[in-house]
Amino acid sequence: MAEEKKIPYKIYLTEEEMPKAWYNLRADMKVKPAPLLNPGTGKPLTAEELAPIFCEELVKQELDNDTKFVDIPQEILDFYKMFRPSPLVRAYCLEEKLQTPAKIYYKFEGNNTSGSHKLNSAIAQAYYAKKQGLKGVTTETGAGQWGTALSMACAYLGLDCKVYMVKVSYEQKPFRREVMRTYGASVVPSPSETTEVGRKILAEHPGTTGSLGCAISEAVEVATKNPGYRYVLGSVLNQVLLHQSVIGLETKAALDKYGIKPDIIIGCAGGGSNLGGLIAPFMGEKLRGEADYRIIAVEPASCPSFTRGTFAYDFCDTGMICPLAKMYTLGSSFIPSANHAGGLRFHGMSSTLSQLYHDGYMEAVSVEQTDVFEAAEFFARTEGILPAPESSHAIRAAINEAKKCKETGEEKTIVFGLTGTGYFDLVAYQKYNDGEMSDYIPSDEEIAASVAKLPKVEG
Amino acid sequence: MAEEKKIPYKIYLTEEEMPKAWYNLRADMKVKPAPLLNPGTGKPLTAEELAPIFCEELVKQELDNDTKFVDIPQEILDFYKMFRPSPLVRAYCLEEKLQTPAKIYYKFEGNNTSGSHKLNSAIAQAYYAKKQGLKGVTTETGAGQWGTALSMACAYLGLDCKVYMVKVSYEQKPFRREVMRTYGASVVPSPSETTEVGRKILAEHPGTTGSLGCAISEAVEVATKNPGYRYVLGSVLNQVLLHQSVIGLETKAALDKYGIKPDIIIGCAGGGSNLGGLIAPFMGEKLRGEADYRIIAVEPASCPSFTRGTFAYDFCDTGMICPLAKMYTLGSSFIPSANHAGGLRFHGMSSTLSQLYHDGYMEAVSVEQTDVFEAAEFFARTEGILPAPESSHAIRAAINEAKKCKETGEEKTIVFGLTGTGYFDLVAYQKYNDGEMSDYIPSDEEIAASVAKLPKVEG
Repeated sequence: MAEEKKIPYKIYLTEEEMPKAWYNLRADMKVKPAPLLNPGTGKPLTAEELAPIFCEELVKQELDNDTKFVDIPQEILDFYKMFRPSPLVRAYCLEEKLQTPAKIYYKFEGNNTSGSHKLNSAIAQAYYAKKQGLKGVTTETGAGQWGTALSMACAYLGLDCKVYMVKVSYEQKPFRREVMRTYGASVVPSPSETTEVGRKILAEHPGTTGSLGCAISEAVEVATKNPGYRYVLGSVLNQVLLHQSVIGLETKAALDKYGIKPDIIIGCAGGGSNLGGLIAPFMGEKLRGEADYRIIAVEPASCPSFTRGTFAYDFCDTGMICPLAKMYTLGSSFIPSANHAGGLRFHGMSSTLSQLYHDGYMEAVSVEQTDVFEAAEFFARTEGILPAPESSHAIRAAINEAKKCKETGEEKTIVFGLTGTGYFDLVAYQKYNDGEMSDYIPSDEEIAASVAKLPKVEG
Repeated sequence: MAEEKKIPYKIYLTEEEMPKAWYNLRADMKVKPAPLLNPGTGKPLTAEELAPIFCEELVKQELDNDTKFVDIPQEILDFYKMFRPSPLVRAYCLEEKLQTPAKIYYKFEGNNTSGSHKLNSAIAQAYYAKKQGLKGVTTETGAGQWGTALSMACAYLGLDCKVYMVKVSYEQKPFRREVMRTYGASVVPSPSETTEVGRKILAEHPGTTGSLGCAISEAVEVATKNPGYRYVLGSVLNQVLLHQSVIGLETKAALDKYGIKPDIIIGCAGGGSNLGGLIAPFMGEKLRGEADYRIIAVEPASCPSFTRGTFAYDFCDTGMICPLAKMYTLGSSFIPSANHAGGLRFHGMSSTLSQLYHDGYMEAVSVEQTDVFEAAEFFARTEGILPAPESSHAIRAAINEAKKCKETGEEKTIVFGLTGTGYFDLVAYQKYNDGEMSDYIPSDEEIAASVAKLPKVEG
């Protein structure tokens, strides 16, 4: 480690170098992502239909396939300064430990109290709600990463924040709940008596510990029934990918600053918020024919939307109350097995990323949980940072690629997204440390059964 | 927040600007801190006497009152690059929320997996152990912050790490334990059957949940009885203050870069590791008569060593097996009440800081726990970072000083140390959020009773 290094361990942009506009990847796509459909009519959703659920400006962003750059409002830029730029880290220690000729970089989004990249979109969505004169926003959260980010953004802007947290998580993961409460959010275990749908579910299933689908239903109901409230969501949507493009724009600016051109870009994929953000400007170059990159999505073998799913219209939620999106899906009735990367347990995938994957612009691999935690522990001991299980999927794939470079002797430059820290995932680490973690790969029959229940839609 | 700002939100030093040597504050003290005494002989401890416990190089550093700058070895500089420089943050949002003319900066040491500044000394102590050809190190840990930092450093260097963790924390705070295990440390609940002193204590008190004093005794026994092992400690010692000077040196370099001269420097004080590190170069200027600063130590009202303790020789541990140090102490038999800032629950204080306080170079204030958490929550909502309870003592005092500036209209520049994050302190936050937190201030009689038991030593 002692020899002189030209590239610093961490590349930080100055405030002047930080992106001032988000990049809308869809503007450069020749084949646009298929529109959201109204499940009742089967017709594309209009701005009017979306207005009772989402803020006006966010509806515009959701439907806008053409505007290439969207100026980031000054108030959001100011908030970004509290935790951005995030460092682009040269993984010198990892390279040395792997004895690989590959050059490895990771964009680390975990240096903020929400512990992940979710804050990039949370502040944007909260800002537009505030600007519209709303009182507050509602959302659902499972493990609590998105809910935490939203609570932080709302506390900053003085906006009310109602989080419906899956009951089992509310009870078993009290720490994220307490972070949200510390930021002034009201956190309600779902299903609850506070909504019609919650009361209905409780009447039918008195002992239920809840589900994400149910929490979404409650959050949407509260948003649409209470004047001055809207519903917000932390992944999957086009607007989220737009806001998250700040990750990729910073990464590209940092690489350009030192004249580095990556060969491979790797990100974990659940709903697509991190992956879509990280790859945005690189994919843009690829779409415009200006550069070529291998772009790899990494998903859990237990929930393999890209690698084993079907490209079709499906509901975004298990409760089947949300719009239909055309995407790679395992079917909205697919129940992912207990996988500790909660953020990747989603049956579907961003429409934008799905279209790009369908059109051959990116690859996808799936990795098994124990392999992921092996990589996570190796990374923690080598690079110091305890990674989130989600992020560790990207670590696993990056290490695999670096090992291939060792075999072939190729000096490839690999960039991966380290989306967050694992400080609230220690129950999973404990299982891994105790040798009690197992893998689960769904059978073809299991996937076929849920895919068979896909809604019948032309598209 | 929208107006132009000349000083960036976060000042990061470049790798070239980072300190290359630690600063030994004692070299500039006219009245040196009193030496450690052998409790058996009452005589100053020699290097020979300390060698079976501490590494050779660390013994030298411990006893060296004269060398002003100690070069930081390259391997430690390389490790520092993984989490340093830490940002010096201009608290623009806090200033605006307080409507104060004061300019507030904080040095944030929490952006690493150990969650605090402890890593600065952990890597140094582990490095010297490795350099001496040792197999491993032993230590004790209460809540687990120091143990985590040491585990990370040992994982990096391939050194064995045995942590004796107070049994009640081992059982009630499993998350930090799992971080340590993920970094490859063996974590033993103390008292244990693995040591003579542990077995003795267990025989006498079969149901005991342990104490820090007992864990120290076990860690020291294992270090002295096993060839190739030494004992390491995360605070109080001179060597720790030396390593932690990197905090203050970076802070001063960042301020100098923008021509900023602080008026007030504030740090929380438990054993003194953070405070001694943060103030080092500023105190040096003050000692040399080159500049003047108000330097304020902040301690919990429940454990007020500076503000209500006695300046005398005392044991550093409750087990009374460690050397005697001259310091401000409440008596080693003083049992601090359940205060959630575990890192500040120490009856004594660094000898160096004690001498400086005695000689009038710094002030001290004590603050109550509920006031501390009020400041912590206010800070989290305003600046985004969820602070550690320890750090929040400094936040409380900084806010108090900023409010005074509002009253007087003075544009003072305040710098405080934000030593770490509160991600593993959410049980305390929950108590605060639920209104179940109370304050405790020891009575004069209580303090007098433990001070009466101070060892009889000339000094």
